[in-house]
Amino acid sequence: MSNKPSLPRGTRDFGPDIMSRRNLIINKIREVFEKYSFQPLETPSMENLSVLTGKYGDEGDQLLYKVLNSGDFLSKTRSDDFAKGSKEMTKKISNKGLRYDLTVPFARYVVMHQNEITFPFRRYQIQPVWRADNPQRGRYREFYQCDADVIGSKSIVSDLEIVWLIHDVFDNLGLEDYELKVNNRKILTAISEFIGEPGKEGPLCVAIDKLDKIGEEAVLGELKSVGFGSNACDQLLPILKLSGSNTEKLKYLNSILGNIEIGKEGLDEMVFLVEKSEQKQGIKLKLDFDVTLARGLSYYTGTIYEVKPTTVKMGSITGGGRYDDLTGIFGLPGVSGTGISFGIDRIYDVMLELGLFPQSQLNNTKLMITNFGEETLDFALKSLNELRNAGINAEIYPESAKMKKQFNYANKKQIPFVAVIGPDEVEKEMISLKDMQSGEQVELSLENVCNKLIGAE
Amino acid sequence: MSNKPSLPRGTRDFGPDIMSRRNLIINKIREVFEKYSFQPLETPSMENLSVLTGKYGDEGDQLLYKVLNSGDFLSKTRSDDFAKGSKEMTKKISNKGLRYDLTVPFARYVVMHQNEITFPFRRYQIQPVWRADNPQRGRYREFYQCDADVIGSKSIVSDLEIVWLIHDVFDNLGLEDYELKVNNRKILTAISEFIGEPGKEGPLCVAIDKLDKIGEEAVLGELKSVGFGSNACDQLLPILKLSGSNTEKLKYLNSILGNIEIGKEGLDEMVFLVEKSEQKQGIKLKLDFDVTLARGLSYYTGTIYEVKPTTVKMGSITGGGRYDDLTGIFGLPGVSGTGISFGIDRIYDVMLELGLFPQSQLNNTKLMITNFGEETLDFALKSLNELRNAGINAEIYPESAKMKKQFNYANKKQIPFVAVIGPDEVEKEMISLKDMQSGEQVELSLENVCNKLIGAE
Repeated sequence: MSNKPSLPRGTRDFGPDIMSRRNLIINKIREVFEKYSFQPLETPSMENLSVLTGKYGDEGDQLLYKVLNSGDFLSKTRSDDFAKGSKEMTKKISNKGLRYDLTVPFARYVVMHQNEITFPFRRYQIQPVWRADNPQRGRYREFYQCDADVIGSKSIVSDLEIVWLIHDVFDNLGLEDYELKVNNRKILTAISEFIGEPGKEGPLCVAIDKLDKIGEEAVLGELKSVGFGSNACDQLLPILKLSGSNTEKLKYLNSILGNIEIGKEGLDEMVFLVEKSEQKQGIKLKLDFDVTLARGLSYYTGTIYEVKPTTVKMGSITGGGRYDDLTGIFGLPGVSGTGISFGIDRIYDVMLELGLFPQSQLNNTKLMITNFGEETLDFALKSLNELRNAGINAEIYPESAKMKKQFNYANKKQIPFVAVIGPDEVEKEMISLKDMQSGEQVELSLENVCNKLIGAE
Repeated sequence: MSNKPSLPRGTRDFGPDIMSRRNLIINKIREVFEKYSFQPLETPSMENLSVLTGKYGDEGDQLLYKVLNSGDFLSKTRSDDFAKGSKEMTKKISNKGLRYDLTVPFARYVVMHQNEITFPFRRYQIQPVWRADNPQRGRYREFYQCDADVIGSKSIVSDLEIVWLIHDVFDNLGLEDYELKVNNRKILTAISEFIGEPGKEGPLCVAIDKLDKIGEEAVLGELKSVGFGSNACDQLLPILKLSGSNTEKLKYLNSILGNIEIGKEGLDEMVFLVEKSEQKQGIKLKLDFDVTLARGLSYYTGTIYEVKPTTVKMGSITGGGRYDDLTGIFGLPGVSGTGISFGIDRIYDVMLELGLFPQSQLNNTKLMITNFGEETLDFALKSLNELRNAGINAEIYPESAKMKKQFNYANKKQIPFVAVIGPDEVEKEMISLKDMQSGEQVELSLENVCNKLIGAE
C-alpha cells in the first residue's frame, strides 16, 4: 500500500531555491563573524537532559524535545512509574534532549574545555535548535540560531564590538529597514531602587517587556498586581515616556539615577557605547538607547540588544546581551560574557518580503551540454571534463532525449548557456554555444567556450 | 550545587581547530558538487516515524532515535499498553524520529515535491544523521553525511558522473591513498543464476559482503548454511578469486554470463564505465571493477561504488549506487536514480592520520590590536574599523591588561600580526606592527598596515 508521506508540523524542507538564499544569509553573517575574529564551534544536537533542564524556566522545560532511551527503555520502569504520569515517567525513559538554544551548550562547552581555551574566547556557532512550540508566523519547531559571544572578559569594549557587529551584519545583508535598541540591566535595577522598590528588577523587567504589546496602562496595572505601590508607578511613568536623543535621555536618567551606584555604572557603560560607536565610520548608526527594553531572559546582567524590522511586521530578529554568570550553573562561577544571536529564519522571511535577494543567485550552474547519444558522447564528455577543470560549473543532459526536452530542462533550471554537441559539431570539433537569455548561438572551439564562460562570471 | 556537565556517549564537540578542518573538507566537497551542477537541499532533523520505520531493516529500526511526543504523552496510553513492553509502547508515545540517513528523507522530498521538481533532479545534501549504534573507531552516534544523487534518469551517463565525482572530490581533498571499487548488482544477479541458484542474489550479496572480513571458506560455508548447493559453491569459487585488469575480468565474466540477459546488461554498463572513464584526463583513474563488492543495502539495483582508504585502517569512507525504485515506498514507483555518500567524519579521521591538513589553516584572524586603555582607545577603535573595512579579519584585546598577557593571547591563538597602539603611537598617529613569526617590528601608518596585510594574504 502506498503511504503518503508528510512532514512533522512546524518543520520545513529547504529546496534548492530556498537553500541558495539561506546560504547567502549564512555566508554573509559568517563572513562578518570571521572579520570580527570569532572562531567556529559546533556542539551535538543531543545534550544530556541534566544539562538542559532548568535552564529555560518551566515553560522552556516543557518545550524541550526529549529523546527516548534506546533499546528496552521500559526495563528500568515499574507500573507505579506509569501511574505517576508523564512528567515522572519522562525521567525514567529519557535522558537526552534536543538542544533548545546555542547558549547553554556553549556554557557547557566552556566549562568542559576551560583548560584548553584561550580567554577571552570569541566563538561563533550556526546550528539548528528545536522547540516544541506552537508554530506560527516566524516561529518554527526547528530553526537556526547564529550566535557570536565573547566570554571571559568584563570589558565594555566587547559590548561595543557587538553593537558594531550588528551594524556590519545587516549592512552586509543589505537590510536597512531595522531598528537596534540597546539598554542596560543595571539601569533597570537602579530604576527599581529609584521608584522605591529595590530588588524588584525581575518583575519590573517582565512587565516592561510587554510595553509594546499592551501599553503603559496595562504595564502599570500588572506592576500593581505584583505588589508595586502607586507611588512607584507614578515615578515610573515619566521614565517609560522618556524621549529625545540618546544623549538627552542619558542626561535625564543621570539626574535621577546618578547617585545610585549600579545606576551610575550602567549609565557610564551606555555613554561609552553611544560615544565610541561613532568611531565606526562609513555606516549609518542605528543605536537607539531605549530604557524600556528589558528582554525576558533572566541571565542578562549588563548591556542588552534587540533588533526588529521597521517596515515588515515581525518580532525580534536579533537579540542578546551581557551575562555575568552563565557558566556558574555548571560549576564555573564568575566568567562574564556578552553575545548576540541572529535569527536566520526570520531574517530570511523579512528579506524575502522586502525583495532583497538577488534574482540571479539561484543556480550556480553555468552550462549544460546536450546529449545526442553514443556517437557524440566522447567529445561531449571530454568537453564536460575540460570545462569543469577550467572552474566552470557544468552538467551534461544524461539521456539522448529530444532537443526540445533538453532545452526545456536548461530553461527551467535557469542555466545561462547550452553547449550543443551534435554530429556536425563532433565532425568539426567545434561547439555551438547558445546564450539562453539572448538566444544568440555561436560556434566556438572548446578552448574558446571556456574563455567566454570564465569571462562571463 | 555544582553539576559537572558531560556529553551523551558517541557525540562530540567540535572546537575551533576541529571546525576549521571539518569546514575545509565540507567546502571542498561542496565545491565539487557545485562544479557537477548538483543543487543544495536540506530536510528537517525530525521525520515522522511512519516515514523512517521499515526502511532500514529490523536492525535499523532499533537504531532510530525516537522523540517523545510533547506534553502529556501518556494521556493516550493505558496501563495495558505499558504491560505490552517497550516496542508497543513506543508507538503510543512517539511519532517522530531523528533522521537515520539522507536518502530516505530525499525520497520523501521527491515524492512530496514531484510537481515542482525539474527532472532529472541533481541534489546534494550535507547534514548530520543519528544512529543509536555502539560507538567505536570511525562510528559515532551523530555524524555528517554528504550525499549527491541524480534522480529521474536511468542513464548510465549519470553513473559515470558519480565515478568522476568521486575522483574529483578526493583529488580536491588531496587524499590519494584510497581505492575505489565498482560493481553492478545485475552481474551479481546473473552470477546467482549462473551457479544454479536463480533469485538468490539477496543472500549471495549478504554473504559476499563479508568476504574481506571472514574469507572465502567462511563465505561458502555461510552460503551452504542458507541452502546453496555444493555445486553452486564450486562454480562460485573461481568467480570470487577472479583477478587481472578490469578488461580481463570483464572478458572472463562475459564468457560465462554473456548469455544471461541481466548479466549482459550489467556487463555492458560496466564496460561503459571502464571505457568512458578514460575521457576524464588529468587525473589518475582508480576505478577497480570488483565482482565481490556487494554492499549490504537492499535497494541497489545497478552500479555500486565503495571507497576505502589504503594505508589507514578504516572501513568504507564513501559508498553508493543505483536504485531503481527508491520512491516506490512513498507511492511514486519507477523513478530511478544513482548517488553517492561521503562520510565526512571518517574522511576527517583519515586525513588527520595522514597529516593532510594544512598547518596554517586554523585561525582566520590576521591581526590583534593591543589595548592600552582609555587614552589610546579612540585611535585603536578607528584603526580596527578601518582594517575590517579593508577586508582584514582583526580584533582588539578587550581589556588594558599587561602587554605580556595580551601578546600571550595573540601567540596562543596563532594570530600572525600584532598592532601595538600605545600613547607614543597615538601621538604620532602611527602603528607599531609586529610580525609574530619573525619578531620584526615596524612603524607604519594605518593605511600602510592595511596594504601590508592585504599583500600578506
